[in-house]
Amino acid sequence: MITSFHPPVRTLMGPGPSDVNPRILEALSRPTIGHLDPAFIDMMDQVKVLLQSAFKTENELTLPVSAPGSAGMETAFANLLERGDKAIVCQNGVFGGRMKENVERCGAEAVMVQDEWGTPVDLNKVEEALKANPDAKLLAFVHAETSTGVRSDAKALCELARKYDCLSVVDAVTSLAGIELRVDDWGIDAIYSGTQKCLSCVPGIAPVSFSERAAKIIRERKTPVQSWFLDLNLVMGYWGGSTKRAYHHTAPVNSLYALHESLVIVQEEGIENAWARHARNHRSLAAGIEALGLSFVVEEEYRLPQLNLVRFPDTVDDAAVRAALLQDYDLEIGSGLGAFAGKVWRIGLMGFASSQKNVNLCLAALSNTLR
Amino acid sequence: MITSFHPPVRTLMGPGPSDVNPRILEALSRPTIGHLDPAFIDMMDQVKVLLQSAFKTENELTLPVSAPGSAGMETAFANLLERGDKAIVCQNGVFGGRMKENVERCGAEAVMVQDEWGTPVDLNKVEEALKANPDAKLLAFVHAETSTGVRSDAKALCELARKYDCLSVVDAVTSLAGIELRVDDWGIDAIYSGTQKCLSCVPGIAPVSFSERAAKIIRERKTPVQSWFLDLNLVMGYWGGSTKRAYHHTAPVNSLYALHESLVIVQEEGIENAWARHARNHRSLAAGIEALGLSFVVEEEYRLPQLNLVRFPDTVDDAAVRAALLQDYDLEIGSGLGAFAGKVWRIGLMGFASSQKNVNLCLAALSNTLR
Repeated sequence: MITSFHPPVRTLMGPGPSDVNPRILEALSRPTIGHLDPAFIDMMDQVKVLLQSAFKTENELTLPVSAPGSAGMETAFANLLERGDKAIVCQNGVFGGRMKENVERCGAEAVMVQDEWGTPVDLNKVEEALKANPDAKLLAFVHAETSTGVRSDAKALCELARKYDCLSVVDAVTSLAGIELRVDDWGIDAIYSGTQKCLSCVPGIAPVSFSERAAKIIRERKTPVQSWFLDLNLVMGYWGGSTKRAYHHTAPVNSLYALHESLVIVQEEGIENAWARHARNHRSLAAGIEALGLSFVVEEEYRLPQLNLVRFPDTVDDAAVRAALLQDYDLEIGSGLGAFAGKVWRIGLMGFASSQKNVNLCLAALSNTLR
Repeated sequence: MITSFHPPVRTLMGPGPSDVNPRILEALSRPTIGHLDPAFIDMMDQVKVLLQSAFKTENELTLPVSAPGSAGMETAFANLLERGDKAIVCQNGVFGGRMKENVERCGAEAVMVQDEWGTPVDLNKVEEALKANPDAKLLAFVHAETSTGVRSDAKALCELARKYDCLSVVDAVTSLAGIELRVDDWGIDAIYSGTQKCLSCVPGIAPVSFSERAAKIIRERKTPVQSWFLDLNLVMGYWGGSTKRAYHHTAPVNSLYALHESLVIVQEEGIENAWARHARNHRSLAAGIEALGLSFVVEEEYRLPQLNLVRFPDTVDDAAVRAALLQDYDLEIGSGLGAFAGKVWRIGLMGFASSQKNVNLCLAALSNTLR
């Protein structure tokens, strides 16, 4: 007989999921109601307003996709691209590569702009690619690369896209609520995020937002979106502003309670204050990391405060240290991905987990374990 | 300022979500851990074993898709079909139509076998279609049509599929854990379900299972699955039996706690006992419905015990009755879909909601409201 599962109580300082605020876990467990219940419809309207506020946008087409961040990425590409389209994709880590996969599975061509892992997307290379590909439909890049801890200049990249009459598609999975992000001011056309990073919510939902320019392209497609489940023309029948909601799929009711609560918490703190908190706790961690004789992979200017790539000496046994942190401190930090596997740790300070208490725990645990 | 959302406490007797067992809501709110945490990996292994047991299969490729039942449907078609393939799709309600949409969005051709809403899939018509289309790759049908309350003969349909060398694809969203379902004994090649029906779990996850024959077809595709997120060749790197789990997407950790708990509850009761309970409570409801002078749409032989289509007289104001049930009794029943809109109610007795207590409440509330 298999019995109920009781998870250990961890402190989550990896690349996500991050520590979930207990208020959100409590909201998650509230009684399930129908996805067409008037009370639920009211809550959906609030989620939309709160998401618009977190993204700093007035985009009508702003909603949570009923699946994890990866499905948010697919929603952007599958809705905007048709067979034969061309997309410029910037890659400076794992997730640019995933964008390429998505573009190609839509039957479109991906023109890649490659930058070294650990560095931001190079604006000059992007401008060259835009000049060389006047037929490109969109420019896609990752704002906060979870695999490398690098922030790219989203504002400047979106300006470039607009200059060359391209849509901009921004991966904000790790950036939303952790660093400055302004969808309308920066002219972002399509953006997706996840719930399990700086929103400190449980994983499983992908907030997305599309400009009117992008929404028009989706409405006027020549061919149907290849995914029925992610087709925004259908999803909008349920999430759209109309009072009569058309059934598309059964919404993940309780996960949306949790997202609602996480967005209420962001609203209470003020998102600019959340950005400042992430920056402050990063500085505190950085001072301690350097005092331990460890170093950062990313130059200070491009570092993500919410995801810290820390290089350790060759003499350190990566897996053994992470196992010890988990066993002795119930502390999870992340391993390196791709080119960085076995060479770095990824230490997250995301959302609720971005606290002085967590900085202290992590530094003390690392110090004792590395001794 | 938007404040925390506190849902009303409803009794959910519509077409789903159904009432969630409080044990499952409590499991849902347990502390989030990492999706690569050894404790989580152990739990995933248990979910797989429990799902195999609920589906009555030994299929290795059995796992929960990280999105609602509709995405489970898309997982089946997007993985099995390639451009130019042909599929025979049975339609006797809303969800057969959705299957057609999915088939066509995969670039495949859907040969439709139409039956009247409220009746089961006709075996003779299916055999004719199989004979007329020897190049068909698969036969797809809905075991328990949520829009009409009809059970089709899944065992006989799968036998026909096999006789004509077709894969069988079965929609078990509403059937799993509510009526007899035997994946291996019946030779089902691909099956998908949802968590929010007879598993009494929160909505948002889609259990799926594929026979070795189907899995081989997926492994040996000529072209990549058009959905990156739903590509089982990638998903299996995370859910597969290997001790080294490859990151694909971030699993919806807490929703999987809930699914685990719901499957533990099914195991405790014994799935055959759950089927019997659904049948028993249906008979009790049916007696009361007929005593109220209302009638069933579906002939007794084909009725789903977990979803009852009840016809009401023209003199009854559909929306007013449902609004009164919701307001006066916090009781949700479902409205008719498609051809049945405004003509029937859909009364669910699914999973935890399939109880004598709920039967009593529903009959008393209907009786008083219709008086």
